[in-house]
Amino acid sequence: MTVFQDKIRIVPDFPKKGIEFYDITTLIKDKQAFAEVIDLFYEKFKNYNLDYVVAVESRGYLFGAPLAYKLKCGLVIIRKPNKLPAKTERIEYGLEYGKDILEIHTDSIEPGKKVLIIDDLLATGGTIKAACSLVEKLQGHIEALAFVVELKNLNGRKQLSQDLPIFSLLQAD
Amino acid sequence: MTVFQDKIRIVPDFPKKGIEFYDITTLIKDKQAFAEVIDLFYEKFKNYNLDYVVAVESRGYLFGAPLAYKLKCGLVIIRKPNKLPAKTERIEYGLEYGKDILEIHTDSIEPGKKVLIIDDLLATGGTIKAACSLVEKLQGHIEALAFVVELKNLNGRKQLSQDLPIFSLLQAD
Repeated sequence: MTVFQDKIRIVPDFPKKGIEFYDITTLIKDKQAFAEVIDLFYEKFKNYNLDYVVAVESRGYLFGAPLAYKLKCGLVIIRKPNKLPAKTERIEYGLEYGKDILEIHTDSIEPGKKVLIIDDLLATGGTIKAACSLVEKLQGHIEALAFVVELKNLNGRKQLSQDLPIFSLLQAD
Repeated sequence: MTVFQDKIRIVPDFPKKGIEFYDITTLIKDKQAFAEVIDLFYEKFKNYNLDYVVAVESRGYLFGAPLAYKLKCGLVIIRKPNKLPAKTERIEYGLEYGKDILEIHTDSIEPGKKVLIIDDLLATGGTIKAACSLVEKLQGHIEALAFVVELKNLNGRKQLSQDLPIFSLLQAD
């Protein structure tokens, strides 16, 4: 029996009116639900023979870090601009309003390494598409993408390569 | 034999001239060093009977999330302002230049629950002191504080309650 779905809190009108926000803080504070989510990811990816789990700042860290630990992989982080101290690759991408920037350390992934990219939420797909581009710049091989929640109505999958396995624990309309 | 210390990269002049930045991205991307750090924390805290690991945004998540998973605890996050969607407690605290703000969900810790607070770095102690205040506002019971790196010269411990166990994996001058 799964319990994690019931622990996600829907907060209306955040961050702005009309948006239903999927709050995973109520999930991770529940020790059973949190363990269940990590274990489900682990079961899915344990035979992928991954080198790195790449986690997107900052909620992606909450799931990517335990998963990397459990899978006995390295953990690589993608950050907001000007937070990483060494040489980085950088990508600018469009949001609904304005732009955002993500960075990855240039020496964080060696060419050909097998990578899973993880974030908490797949919405319009802009962030994860940018994350994929960063990993591809480093010539990492993206084996799959993973999310806790996928908002199906926003068609995030359409932004992404059709060959790429995309695994989301919960699909919501 | 421990290996994690050798995997921390010292980056000079980041984020500004004269600062030596302890870069943990090179530690976490090494699967052995990352596992070692989590296992050392686990061994230290496995008998504390903790209810929650409280992790400070965002590098604290990289260590707090796997530790909570391994300890079979809940994970609670302290965030930068206006990121948490539900009702929060908020604290403003002084930095060397200017102010910063941290928030925690008001319903994230029930009174009397046993809590470990974790971050990657103990420097001047301002951030962790603010984090402690937030947990205390919720009447959580802070059992200990944990850090990967402690910069001893900055005397962060002096800012903190003398009764509180403080555990840092690496003390640097």
